[in-house]
Amino acid sequence: MAALRTAVDLTGLEVGYDIPALPGMTQDEVQTPCLLLDLDALERNIAKMGAFARRHAIRHRAHGKMHKSVDVALLQERLGGACGVCCQKVSEAEVFVRGGIRDVLVSNQVTQPSKIDRLARLPKRGARILCCVDDMANIADLSAAARRHGTQIECLVEIDCGAGRCGVTAMPEVVALARAIDAAAGLKFAGIQAYQGAMQHLGTFDARASQAAVATAMAREAVAALHAAGLACDVVTGGGTGSYGFEAKSGVYTELQCGSYAFMDADYGRILDRDGQRMDAGEWENALFILTSVMSHAKPGQAVCDAGLKVQSVDSGLPVVFGRQDVTYVQCSDEHGVIADPGGVLAINDRLRLVPGHCDPTCNIHDWYVGMRGDRVEVVWPVSARGKAY
Amino acid sequence: MAALRTAVDLTGLEVGYDIPALPGMTQDEVQTPCLLLDLDALERNIAKMGAFARRHAIRHRAHGKMHKSVDVALLQERLGGACGVCCQKVSEAEVFVRGGIRDVLVSNQVTQPSKIDRLARLPKRGARILCCVDDMANIADLSAAARRHGTQIECLVEIDCGAGRCGVTAMPEVVALARAIDAAAGLKFAGIQAYQGAMQHLGTFDARASQAAVATAMAREAVAALHAAGLACDVVTGGGTGSYGFEAKSGVYTELQCGSYAFMDADYGRILDRDGQRMDAGEWENALFILTSVMSHAKPGQAVCDAGLKVQSVDSGLPVVFGRQDVTYVQCSDEHGVIADPGGVLAINDRLRLVPGHCDPTCNIHDWYVGMRGDRVEVVWPVSARGKAY
Repeated sequence: MAALRTAVDLTGLEVGYDIPALPGMTQDEVQTPCLLLDLDALERNIAKMGAFARRHAIRHRAHGKMHKSVDVALLQERLGGACGVCCQKVSEAEVFVRGGIRDVLVSNQVTQPSKIDRLARLPKRGARILCCVDDMANIADLSAAARRHGTQIECLVEIDCGAGRCGVTAMPEVVALARAIDAAAGLKFAGIQAYQGAMQHLGTFDARASQAAVATAMAREAVAALHAAGLACDVVTGGGTGSYGFEAKSGVYTELQCGSYAFMDADYGRILDRDGQRMDAGEWENALFILTSVMSHAKPGQAVCDAGLKVQSVDSGLPVVFGRQDVTYVQCSDEHGVIADPGGVLAINDRLRLVPGHCDPTCNIHDWYVGMRGDRVEVVWPVSARGKAY
Repeated sequence: MAALRTAVDLTGLEVGYDIPALPGMTQDEVQTPCLLLDLDALERNIAKMGAFARRHAIRHRAHGKMHKSVDVALLQERLGGACGVCCQKVSEAEVFVRGGIRDVLVSNQVTQPSKIDRLARLPKRGARILCCVDDMANIADLSAAARRHGTQIECLVEIDCGAGRCGVTAMPEVVALARAIDAAAGLKFAGIQAYQGAMQHLGTFDARASQAAVATAMAREAVAALHAAGLACDVVTGGGTGSYGFEAKSGVYTELQCGSYAFMDADYGRILDRDGQRMDAGEWENALFILTSVMSHAKPGQAVCDAGLKVQSVDSGLPVVFGRQDVTYVQCSDEHGVIADPGGVLAINDRLRLVPGHCDPTCNIHDWYVGMRGDRVEVVWPVSARGKAY
């Protein structure tokens, strides 16, 4: 009767909400598809990054845009010594502040009036709030909102150090923006944001190293220009899972912003370190999976599983079946994944763990993380800031 | 003070939840990024499909997996004469039944014990419930659950008529499954599911026509085989936005399952009709948009908007800027979209409407539809079954 009781407990119609698992369940009892966390692997990844940051005397501001989870962020503070989080949207920052994170950087421009107003209210909740700036008029808007609410927003000038998205590139612009922030009531000039997103997934160590050298040189130049202008630059923040070693050894960065290291994904797993080793072959463990089930096996050689585009982003490629050489995820449509099963080893309701191609946009689709310790569900955590895009 | 009042109303910290807009706002006041519906275009699309189905004396079971919205489904019943919905997951079906839809087909296999149990409970809520079957052992499980709850589940045998996913292909298998359903207590054999998903997006009319001919021939063969075995086949259901004309004229299909016609997207918009006309050039209107804002313009010739992978699926290509020839969405990362702006016409906080590449997995990321009539927000609808993947 265990299965029946389980079903009753999990019927959304009865309990009013809908979760894929309850603590104590085995993997075979969990409703699929859902996100599954291997808690042991997650904790090892977090502790390892914490030890790295301590060893290099650099702060780690864990990127909450990846997991969007208050529970994971608190674990990163407790086990990994993280100094707080960064995130990309004001609505995410609200969730993290509400969840107890006391140092939150919106590592992005905040330009809409309603969002600036929301941002300016957040320090009232007892949190240090920072955001990025790359436009002069924006500084006046941020200042007006902070004054209106009697709060302080710390601002970082964003430099574009190679990603080609937001941020300024000319040093006189960096200095002019910093001066304007420094002079604006309600704002504090805190430093620079120098994150190079485009190099993180480059396949070889040397390719990443040469891009990181460019980014680091720009950050150093910016700090020198600010110092020459009489402006202290307390925060130099950037670095991701593909590059953190470079920023940590640069002597100019004061903070790392790694996110994906905690969960890993197939795309990061493929990139190579200095010795030609895959990143998922020792540096970081796969802690995040999409748990899926075979739902049809009407044709020999091919199974169909229940994990399609509604539970993952395939922008960085298809998912990889974890720990199996005998079956391969070969095709993805809205609701289905086609699994090549040449040996006919799969049966209906068999479970597979998929390593998603790209963790960030995959996590953002789901409402829940099912955290397993060994072969039992230990926790079910909400994806607290899921869908917080504004 | 309008902007400030707006911000206060929309601050998640104050009201406890977080919506991108309120009725009465203009487009420039809406927080972005978010999903925007042009209600006039949506209603015209729905009415047009309703008229088409009436003219061809065929039922339209609107596919709820596309919009995942009770409000849109009810509009499809009211304005478009839809006979109910189909959807792909039991958790979706629960949402639609709770929302007042009284005829719900889960157009997919339901194989996990807990989901079978949930499905078997649904008829108690006053709804007709159907699902698809392609496996003999599954029939026994469905029957046991229906008997346990004293309900009836109507079953369709799924035939694989070309998509290469779920479903059986041999007529003796179709008949054997139908006989087993017919003999099983708590189940009713209702007909066949013959949806060919792989042909929907083929670029030319002729390519779709030839695939549709194969699918229709298989459906006709299955109906004949069932009749020869003494089994009535009341329901023959299938057809999508790329193929509905073929199924409607086949004389064998009794139901259409179109979904995307109501919203449209860039990928469907590109496919051509018999006259070489794009599908979005008259057949269906774009009613769904991602509303996005420029958030950075630090470099000449390039703007950065706030719509990246967290608000859309790019499996079927990048979004298209609606109604603009002067700017182009050229690159997508997690949180940002890069807009080529060779003439430098965009400014920070300018709004753009993006037509998403693929509507289904894009809608599934969002919590809200902002419905506009002309230049004012009229409704804010929840994406009721968002994330309901199990």
